[in-house]
Amino acid sequence: MQNHTKLHDIGVIGLGVMGKNLALNIADNQYSVAAFDLDSDKVQGVVQQEKSEHAASKQAQVPLRINGCNNLSEMLSSLEKPRILVLSVPAGAPVDGVCNALIDAGIESDDIVIDTGNSLWTDTVEREARYSKKFVFFSCAVSGGEMGARFGPSLMPSGDIKAWDRIKPIWEAIAAKVDAETGLPIERQEPGNPVTEGEPCTTYIGPAGSGHYVKMVHNGIEYADMQLICEAYQLLSDGFAMTTTEIADLFDKWNQGSLNSYLMEISAEVLRQADPITGKPLVSMILDKAGQKGTGLWTAVSSLQIGCPAPTIAEAVYARAVSTQKEQRQTLSHLLKGPAAEKPTADERDAFIDQLENALYCAKIACYAQGFQLMAMAAKDRGWTLNFAEIAKIWRAGCIIRARFLQSITQAYQAAANDGIELDNLLMADDFSIALSEKQLDWRKAVSAAVLKGIPVPCISSALAYYDSYRCETLPASLLQGQRDFFGAHTFERTDKPAGEKYHLNWSHAARDLIKV
Amino acid sequence: MQNHTKLHDIGVIGLGVMGKNLALNIADNQYSVAAFDLDSDKVQGVVQQEKSEHAASKQAQVPLRINGCNNLSEMLSSLEKPRILVLSVPAGAPVDGVCNALIDAGIESDDIVIDTGNSLWTDTVEREARYSKKFVFFSCAVSGGEMGARFGPSLMPSGDIKAWDRIKPIWEAIAAKVDAETGLPIERQEPGNPVTEGEPCTTYIGPAGSGHYVKMVHNGIEYADMQLICEAYQLLSDGFAMTTTEIADLFDKWNQGSLNSYLMEISAEVLRQADPITGKPLVSMILDKAGQKGTGLWTAVSSLQIGCPAPTIAEAVYARAVSTQKEQRQTLSHLLKGPAAEKPTADERDAFIDQLENALYCAKIACYAQGFQLMAMAAKDRGWTLNFAEIAKIWRAGCIIRARFLQSITQAYQAAANDGIELDNLLMADDFSIALSEKQLDWRKAVSAAVLKGIPVPCISSALAYYDSYRCETLPASLLQGQRDFFGAHTFERTDKPAGEKYHLNWSHAARDLIKV
Repeated sequence: MQNHTKLHDIGVIGLGVMGKNLALNIADNQYSVAAFDLDSDKVQGVVQQEKSEHAASKQAQVPLRINGCNNLSEMLSSLEKPRILVLSVPAGAPVDGVCNALIDAGIESDDIVIDTGNSLWTDTVEREARYSKKFVFFSCAVSGGEMGARFGPSLMPSGDIKAWDRIKPIWEAIAAKVDAETGLPIERQEPGNPVTEGEPCTTYIGPAGSGHYVKMVHNGIEYADMQLICEAYQLLSDGFAMTTTEIADLFDKWNQGSLNSYLMEISAEVLRQADPITGKPLVSMILDKAGQKGTGLWTAVSSLQIGCPAPTIAEAVYARAVSTQKEQRQTLSHLLKGPAAEKPTADERDAFIDQLENALYCAKIACYAQGFQLMAMAAKDRGWTLNFAEIAKIWRAGCIIRARFLQSITQAYQAAANDGIELDNLLMADDFSIALSEKQLDWRKAVSAAVLKGIPVPCISSALAYYDSYRCETLPASLLQGQRDFFGAHTFERTDKPAGEKYHLNWSHAARDLIKV
Repeated sequence: MQNHTKLHDIGVIGLGVMGKNLALNIADNQYSVAAFDLDSDKVQGVVQQEKSEHAASKQAQVPLRINGCNNLSEMLSSLEKPRILVLSVPAGAPVDGVCNALIDAGIESDDIVIDTGNSLWTDTVEREARYSKKFVFFSCAVSGGEMGARFGPSLMPSGDIKAWDRIKPIWEAIAAKVDAETGLPIERQEPGNPVTEGEPCTTYIGPAGSGHYVKMVHNGIEYADMQLICEAYQLLSDGFAMTTTEIADLFDKWNQGSLNSYLMEISAEVLRQADPITGKPLVSMILDKAGQKGTGLWTAVSSLQIGCPAPTIAEAVYARAVSTQKEQRQTLSHLLKGPAAEKPTADERDAFIDQLENALYCAKIACYAQGFQLMAMAAKDRGWTLNFAEIAKIWRAGCIIRARFLQSITQAYQAAANDGIELDNLLMADDFSIALSEKQLDWRKAVSAAVLKGIPVPCISSALAYYDSYRCETLPASLLQGQRDFFGAHTFERTDKPAGEKYHLNWSHAARDLIKV
C-alpha cells in the first residue's frame, strides 16, 4: 500500500536505532514518513521492518507509511510544504553536516528541522541563530532509549514557538502517555497499536536550547539515581553478604513503595539475570568499568559554572571515572587498609535494610532538588521561563528516571504556584521536608554503617552533606572568608552591616585595624 | 638616586597590589624596573613606596631602582633590548588590551611579555599562538597573594624555553626560598633585604599554558584544604562546643605536627582575632558567604572533562556555592530536622579531637592525590612532561598551600623516579599508603560522628569515599553497565573476555541471548 506519489507528512534523517524507532513510532500514529540515511541498507532496513511488523501484527490492514529516499533532494520533494524534518544523527559535526546538505538540497526558510540528538544545549543556541535565514532550526531532546523512541519517549522540545504549533500534534501522538489519575505510565509495546489515551509526555519547554538543557539535567539526575542504586547494591552484597537474587527480590519490594522507579525495576531484572555463557549471575561477569556519553558531566560542569550546588550529580560522574581506573584500584586494593570485616547478624541486616530504604529515598530527594535548582538557576541566567510542574509531569513516563516520585514533584510545584510562591529548593516543599525530617536518622545510620564498614557511598553521603549544609543557618564559610581576607585581601561582609559592604582587616600590620573598602 | 638615562632591566605593567609588590620585589633584588599603569596615581604610588621603604630601612644606601613611565612607548624605549615585560592586569580582555597596545607602541619580535595574572590556561595557549609573530608571549602563574608577591612568591612559568633562560635569573631571585635541608620556608619580610639563600620556589613547568594549569590545580587543592579546615572548625564548635580560642589553640598544636601548613597557621590566627568593632571573635561577625574567583571551579570542570576523579575539590567548590545561598539555608534550617543534640563529655571530646586530626591528615592526602592525578592526566592529554617532584618542591614556600607535607610528596615522586616507576596515584606511595592504612579507622570514626551529629562534612566524607572507592578491586559499576545496556543498549565488557570486546544482552526479547557487538 506504499504510496509514492502522495506527499509525506514528515521526514526522518538518520536511521540508527533512535531514528529508525522514531520513524516507526510516527508511522504507527498514522503520519506518513520519508526516511533517509547515508547508509542505504538502513533505509531498506526501516522499510522492511515496517513491512514485517505489519505482517506479524493484528493490524496488517493498516497501510504502510514509511517511504525510503535515495537522497535529500528526493526527500525534500516528497514532503508537504512547509516541511518538517527530524534529524537523528550523532551530536556535533554531523548535525551541521546534514544542515548544510539540506541547504544545498534546497530547503526553504519556513521548513523546520528538529534536532533530536544528544546535542550540547549551547550548540543548539548557536545553530538556531546560524541557520535562521535558511530554515527554522528547532530542537527536541528525546529520553527513553531505544524502546522509548519506538513506543513512546519523553520529548523535550524547544525553540521557535510557532514551529512548535506545527510539530505539537505529531509529538503528542508519539510521546509516552501517563494515566492522568494515577500518574503512572500506560505501557503497551505493540507495533501498529500505539497508546493514544492518557496525558502525553511532551510539553513546550522554552526558547532554543532550553529543551536540551532540561534533558541534560534529566541525565545528570539519572547518573545520580543509578549510582545510588549501585551503592545500595554494594552495601547489601559486600557489607551484608546478600546474594544477587536476594537483592533483586529486595529491589522488587522497594519498587512497590516510595522507591518505585523504572531504574529500580530494571536493576532487579539485571541482578536476577543469569549469564548465558557461564550460568553465573550476569552482573558478576560484567566488567566494572562504567561508560558515559557526556551529559552527566555537562550537567556537573554547568552546575559549577552557574554556582549551583549539585555535588551528588558530580559525585556520580566521578564514581564512573574511578570505575574506569580498574588497574589503579587493583593495585591499591592490596596497599590500602580498611576496617576488619564483621559478620552481621540477620537482625542487624534487617534493621540495616530498613535504614537503607529510607536513606535512598532521602538521597534521591536531594538529587532531584539539585537538578531542579540547577534548571531554575540556569533559567534565571538565560531568561527562560520554565514550568517545573510540567517538566516533572513529562518525566513520569517514557524517560529513564520515570518514577511515581515525579508526581510528588509536580504536586509540590503546583501547590507552590497555587500559593503564589516560587519554590527555590525542592527541600522546602512540605511533602519532602516532612519525609526528610522523618527519615533523616535512618539516612545517618546507613551512611555511618557504610563508612565504618569501608564501603564507598559517595552519592548517599554527599547527598546527606548537602542536606545538612542547607540545615545550617550558619556555615563555617565565615572562617573561610577570614582565611581569604588574610592571605589575599579578598575582603568580607559583616553580619551586623548591610549586604554588599566590604571589609578588610589589616592582618599584616600590628594594629590590625578594620578598613571599610 | 633614580637614574632616568640608564636602560632598565625589566618593565612591569599594571600596578595593582600584585604588580606593585612584584615591582618592589624585583627592585629589592637589584634589577631596575620601568613601571607603568593606566592610573598615574598607581605609578606614583610604587615610586613613592620604594622611597619611603628605603627611608625606613637599614639599607637606605641602596639606590632606588623603580622608574615610573607615562605611557607604553616611554616604557619600551627605557628598557634594555630584547625587552622583558611583566603584565599584572586582570585575567581576560585586559591582557589582550595591553598586548595590542604594546604592538601599537612598537614591541619587537624577540621581546618577552610575561602574563602573571590569573588567566585561564587555555587562553594562554591561544595567546602564545596569536602573538607569536609580534613578540614572545610567555606566562607565569604566581601564588602567594600580596605578601608572596612582595617578599617571595611561588612562580610557575611556562612557554618558550629560550625565553625562560632569560627570565630565570630574575625569577630565581624574587621567588620564595626554602631551606634545602629542612624543606621549610626561609621567611624574612624586610624591604631592601631579600632572602637570597636557599632553594628558589620556581621551576620551568613546560609548554605554554602548563604553568597556569598547574597553578589552577594548586588553587583547586587550596579550596579543598581550606574547606577541610572549615569542616573541622564547625565540628569542634557546633559538635563539641569548643570556643574559637580553644580551637585556635588546637590548630596551633596541629600546626606543629603532620597537619603543619600555612593555612592551618592562619586559620588559628583568624580564629583568635577579636573584632575591632564589637570585641567578639571576628569570625562570629564575618558573614558566612564565601567568595570565589574561578580557579577552583575551573579545576573541577577540568577534572570532569578529563575524566579524573577529583570529587573532594568539587565538593569544596559546591560548599562555597551553598554558603552563598544563606536565605535558603535560613528557611530550611527551620524546616529540616536533624538529630537531637547530645552533650559530649570531655573524654569524648578529647577522643574525637585525636580522630579528627587523623581524619584531616588522611583527607588532605586524598585531596593532593586528586590534584596530582589531575595534573598527570592533563599532561598526558596535552603532551606535556611535568616533573611532579619539582612542582611539589616549588609549593613548599611562597604559595598558599605551602606545608611540610609537600616535602613528602617530593620524596614520593623522587623515590618512584629512582625505582623507575610512574606514580599513577599518590595513594600508592609507601609513606602515604602506610599513613592512610594506620589512620583510616580514626577517619571513619570522625566521619561517622559528624554524620550522626548532623554536621556537614562534604569534603572529609567525600575524601573517604574516594579512598574507599580506590580500595575496591570490584565496584558496582558492573550493575551500572547492566542498567545502561538494559535501557540504552550501551553494551558492556566481560571479566572473562579480552578488553575491548563489547557485549549486549537482548533484554527486550524473551530469549535474552547475548550478542557480541
